[in-house]
Amino acid sequence: MKVGQVLHMNGGTGHTSYAYNSLLQKKVISLTKEMREEAIRNLYCRTFPKRLGIADLGCSSGPNTLFVISEVIKLVEKLCKEKNHESPEYQVFLNDLPGNDFNNLFESLERFKEKLNDEVDGEIGPCFFNGVPASFYGRIFPSKTMHFIHSSYSLQWLSQVPKGVENNKGNIYMASTSPINVLKAYYNQFQTDFSLFLKCRAEELVERGRMILIFLGRKSDHQYSKESCYIWELLASALNDMVLEGIIMEEQMDTFNIPQYAPSSSEVKLEILKEGSFTIDRLEVTEIHWNAYNDWNDTNFESSLPKSRIDGAINVTNCMRAVAEPLLVNHFGEAIIDEVFVRYQEILVDRMSKEKTEFVNVSISMTKKV
Amino acid sequence: MKVGQVLHMNGGTGHTSYAYNSLLQKKVISLTKEMREEAIRNLYCRTFPKRLGIADLGCSSGPNTLFVISEVIKLVEKLCKEKNHESPEYQVFLNDLPGNDFNNLFESLERFKEKLNDEVDGEIGPCFFNGVPASFYGRIFPSKTMHFIHSSYSLQWLSQVPKGVENNKGNIYMASTSPINVLKAYYNQFQTDFSLFLKCRAEELVERGRMILIFLGRKSDHQYSKESCYIWELLASALNDMVLEGIIMEEQMDTFNIPQYAPSSSEVKLEILKEGSFTIDRLEVTEIHWNAYNDWNDTNFESSLPKSRIDGAINVTNCMRAVAEPLLVNHFGEAIIDEVFVRYQEILVDRMSKEKTEFVNVSISMTKKV
Repeated sequence: MKVGQVLHMNGGTGHTSYAYNSLLQKKVISLTKEMREEAIRNLYCRTFPKRLGIADLGCSSGPNTLFVISEVIKLVEKLCKEKNHESPEYQVFLNDLPGNDFNNLFESLERFKEKLNDEVDGEIGPCFFNGVPASFYGRIFPSKTMHFIHSSYSLQWLSQVPKGVENNKGNIYMASTSPINVLKAYYNQFQTDFSLFLKCRAEELVERGRMILIFLGRKSDHQYSKESCYIWELLASALNDMVLEGIIMEEQMDTFNIPQYAPSSSEVKLEILKEGSFTIDRLEVTEIHWNAYNDWNDTNFESSLPKSRIDGAINVTNCMRAVAEPLLVNHFGEAIIDEVFVRYQEILVDRMSKEKTEFVNVSISMTKKV
Repeated sequence: MKVGQVLHMNGGTGHTSYAYNSLLQKKVISLTKEMREEAIRNLYCRTFPKRLGIADLGCSSGPNTLFVISEVIKLVEKLCKEKNHESPEYQVFLNDLPGNDFNNLFESLERFKEKLNDEVDGEIGPCFFNGVPASFYGRIFPSKTMHFIHSSYSLQWLSQVPKGVENNKGNIYMASTSPINVLKAYYNQFQTDFSLFLKCRAEELVERGRMILIFLGRKSDHQYSKESCYIWELLASALNDMVLEGIIMEEQMDTFNIPQYAPSSSEVKLEILKEGSFTIDRLEVTEIHWNAYNDWNDTNFESSLPKSRIDGAINVTNCMRAVAEPLLVNHFGEAIIDEVFVRYQEILVDRMSKEKTEFVNVSISMTKKV
């Protein structure tokens, strides 16, 4: 995500790609391995298509971008060998907003293909890579041309900041102190965006095509529950301190809101049922510590050394900065950015030492109805 | 084309995109309008496909990049109206080397789509744009998925500098003083590359799919004829002066060769016949003044004022710099570049005032056999 590009974005929301925390991505991709394997096995062995259309929506340009694609291709190659079937042609579509750094992504493809060839025994089917610079809240592929669509940690981004949230003063996201109309506006925007997303993908997928979506979500039925809102509340806290000190103007703070919605599993299910094009095969809700390193190493946050707690907060600050900086720069300008994140980090060091801080993920596997 | 990217290129040849002179492009695209219209009319009205796969190979990222695509879409929309037929879905593939500036290209798409919608009466079929970062000397699309492939001013680039041209001393391209083995090596490389190109495209096109290719070429049967070689000979002259003055080392100069081949129309025809997948519908050879402005304004080069002659030489220098700089930087380093082009421009001012200097274009329209 490049700060210089904040003016060329998705409907003026401020973000240039759907990128999210790469450590969380890695963790969640490992948590959903089984779900993915079941979907691919089922999809591929039903019809053995000669061309397999695969898409990653909100691909970003970081180190994990191609991980799922690589897993899918390796599994299909394994199935081909098992069933003594010729490899398909893989047509891979990497989608993100036009402001995403596709140059960087494209320059990594050669190495990716070499690595993939090294990891697979014998010859691999031909792989054709494409970049698709467009918002996924609209059609991005021709009708009935896609077999498998994957999107991880991107769909919590809304197409825009909900309209009518002017009275969400002192907050930058949904919070326990948000007026009811703000909570409603956020939910309505989620419904509009997600049902449009489903409708578009249903038109693009072949019959019985598969889709796996992974959201930042929540377990609670309350939209303002801490599990999805706390990370933004702490950023609001840093910004509010700067308002008090006169560094940020109050009107500026009052008009800044994050275009994100972390849905509960029942909110996700409800939209899928209402839209009607998909059957749900599997739905899982998992938790990941804010500092994904903690989970990886399986250390208990309460017994961690002060040093590693600080490292953890630095990680989280860096991840959130990658996500939030374009939004903040777009609204507040560049001058205050470093100061915001120094303060945010201080707050995170304190909070992460005192509380168990976790993200909730909703992962869902679907089949396009016949 | 970005100088900083010279190390991430096509087989180490030095170029990062197939980009060429944008004024020449514009001129040649206007010269081939009729050829294109005939191809599209014939292609579309035969089968009225629901999805139309269109590709521009060597698209670059400059102002003319999307011009042909826009023309094709507008013509198909016109045909739909004439025949009272529903618009197809357009799947557009913009291909160039991975070092091409796709970010820039992608950020221009929104404006392009708006302009296209303004220019067409009524609603237009949905357009899906994709970037394809890969060398076209290899497969880049799945089998039988493309309807119309266009490539202009890119195919004169070879996949690599021909092997075995070590004795082409004092030259940087084919020249009248080049040893016979050098001329043979260049021709062999052209044959290998162009026949591979044809074979790949034949696999990717649907039956009766259409392809239009525009090369820098030559009219003469002599490979070292002035019409294709002179522009490089003058660059060699600038470099040789710098060798004499000790600014460039002789060994460096002797090992530098341009990976380009400007074929004659009969060389092009011969490869198409040998490869066997295409019938030739039309072949045209045209000439464009080095300084395409001259042609546009239809001024006579001998009567032009000194001022406009200098402007002309500046234009040509700039165009050639865009093309040659990555190759030169890759071989000689950055330090000498400004000096090379100051000298080149002086030579061009002199030559263009004394001689009629023209590029030759070979344009060919083909149909994939059934």
